[in-house]
Amino acid sequence: MSAEVDRRHMAHALGLARRGLGRVWPNPAVGCVVVKDGRIVGRGWTQPSGRPHAETVALAQAGPLARGAAAYVTLEPCAHHGKTPPCAEALIGAGISQVITAIEDPDPRVAGRGHAMLREAGIDVATGVMAEEATDLQRGFLIRVREGRPLVTLKLATSLDGRIATASGESKWITGPEARRLVHTMRAAHDAVLIGAGTARADNPSLTVRGLGEAHQPVRIIAARSLDLPSASNLARSAREVPVWLLHGPSAPAEERREWTAAGARLIKVAETDKRLDPRAMLAALGREGLTRVFCEGGGQLGATLLRSGFVDEIALFSAGVALGEDAWPALASLGLGVLVDAPRFRLRKLKRVGSDALSLWTRI
Amino acid sequence: MSAEVDRRHMAHALGLARRGLGRVWPNPAVGCVVVKDGRIVGRGWTQPSGRPHAETVALAQAGPLARGAAAYVTLEPCAHHGKTPPCAEALIGAGISQVITAIEDPDPRVAGRGHAMLREAGIDVATGVMAEEATDLQRGFLIRVREGRPLVTLKLATSLDGRIATASGESKWITGPEARRLVHTMRAAHDAVLIGAGTARADNPSLTVRGLGEAHQPVRIIAARSLDLPSASNLARSAREVPVWLLHGPSAPAEERREWTAAGARLIKVAETDKRLDPRAMLAALGREGLTRVFCEGGGQLGATLLRSGFVDEIALFSAGVALGEDAWPALASLGLGVLVDAPRFRLRKLKRVGSDALSLWTRI
Repeated sequence: MSAEVDRRHMAHALGLARRGLGRVWPNPAVGCVVVKDGRIVGRGWTQPSGRPHAETVALAQAGPLARGAAAYVTLEPCAHHGKTPPCAEALIGAGISQVITAIEDPDPRVAGRGHAMLREAGIDVATGVMAEEATDLQRGFLIRVREGRPLVTLKLATSLDGRIATASGESKWITGPEARRLVHTMRAAHDAVLIGAGTARADNPSLTVRGLGEAHQPVRIIAARSLDLPSASNLARSAREVPVWLLHGPSAPAEERREWTAAGARLIKVAETDKRLDPRAMLAALGREGLTRVFCEGGGQLGATLLRSGFVDEIALFSAGVALGEDAWPALASLGLGVLVDAPRFRLRKLKRVGSDALSLWTRI
Repeated sequence: MSAEVDRRHMAHALGLARRGLGRVWPNPAVGCVVVKDGRIVGRGWTQPSGRPHAETVALAQAGPLARGAAAYVTLEPCAHHGKTPPCAEALIGAGISQVITAIEDPDPRVAGRGHAMLREAGIDVATGVMAEEATDLQRGFLIRVREGRPLVTLKLATSLDGRIATASGESKWITGPEARRLVHTMRAAHDAVLIGAGTARADNPSLTVRGLGEAHQPVRIIAARSLDLPSASNLARSAREVPVWLLHGPSAPAEERREWTAAGARLIKVAETDKRLDPRAMLAALGREGLTRVFCEGGGQLGATLLRSGFVDEIALFSAGVALGEDAWPALASLGLGVLVDAPRFRLRKLKRVGSDALSLWTRI
């Protein structure tokens, strides 16, 4: 098939894969399209909680038409027996004659073995189609496999001059309703939402996805070293319906730990550095839990800590048409920078108007 | 002629008018297109320093073809004898049979009289074609006529978190070369560039338009209440080539005044309020000098003063993909805001990528 046709089907598979973002962890969000004589006979994407895999869904849809067909998959099919038999085996069993993938799966249990199994079975295997786009889409999973931590997207919703609240702490609302609605969509495309204890205390947020119908709810994580959080809060009240995880330091009071556990929250102990939760330990703990995509919504202290440690992969900046001045609250606490060349740099990926606000998306360089 | 044809010719005239921005003060930047039997036979725009007017240029180009033709003008033709006879008279004399304008000229010497003169001479006059676009383009002139002050565009070039320099004052360069080049184009489209004394001391800027060939140079204005400026500076050195105006308070030392006058700068005394130059008095002085468009490039103190007084009409915000943190220099000093609803609000007009930076253009609501 021509390179153009390959790209078209892979783009389709990537579009399907995208539907899984935020709801398939610890697995990658994969898409698969089965094509027979130029016709699409099966489409699949990783299902909520990560099972079944995209290939299984697409093959089931194709049925006997899979025999002699081509399968486009956004990630190398798995080669290991987990809860289900490997996808490479399923593709072979279904009689697929050609497999086109975007990228190799770096998971040490796969790492080329999926492609090898297919080739050994006589299947024509090509890889690297839309590799850049696939790397981008599946970046959370790739980072977790390679670095043992989730991808971190930092959301900032600021005034034109980078402020998140007036001097008196008023922040409702700097950005408009369209931007706030888009934030809910963004939350839903991440495995978890993460905020610092200061923001939890100041805003009493519920951090759920609202206004999008029956939506997937990401895990809600608070970085709260000493668990100094009000127990009469929206988070505490709803901890049994939507998961709440609390990252705390070794010295967090036992009483607070008991209280939050009783409320239904999950407590995760994390090492401290300089009387702060160690950001590397924090993200490693989340990686061990299987999270691949974390959406950090501040505050300025947590955002700065993550930036300083080089763990912010993406920034979603909503800029509102309002000026607040230097006595208003800064979007980021000090980064302890010496010279400009040491400042964390980001590449502009996308720029768009959202209601009355400007949204820019940036990726770490 | 159809409304669509009218709009097309007026858009053409507005495009011509735009060429005059920044170089025709105290006059408005006007464009004119003369159309005969569907063919464009004359095009003109206000020439540097404001003379000749657009209509004169277009009529000269049309020559005898102007007889019976239609003239599209972005602003009501003038009706008063100034350095030259009124344009309304010129249009009548050339035998133009139809005049289409975008908006009325609020200048009390015109204010409808231009249209009336044309009608009295039997010319078919229509107005209001692309009025919004014309109001926008000629806004600096309109504000000067109505409020006695120039339009103020505030330029901000900041990090993602609204900072203009690191804690140590390092600001070269936060934004990229494409953004900095566009700033020169923006300077050239304004009558004057304005900065505060702090910025003049910190950056030793020359504030000229560079890198655009043989460009028009806007007046360079420093708001320096006590004239506390280094005399060995780029501004002082070049004050004889490109105008430097210094806005100072009544108590500025006589010695500094003499020194700067000797260097070739023009001194303009402005009233003070609370030991600061009064922003209203400052802009009124610039309006009296004939300025219609002023490009303010900071610093944070001057920007905040102008915002607080409600005199910032446009904001051009360049956002670079870098984070600097709260110990870095803020883009704006305190606005002394009580509640969020009192904060100056702006409407997003345009959003575009400029090299590696994001540019958003905002208009005061």
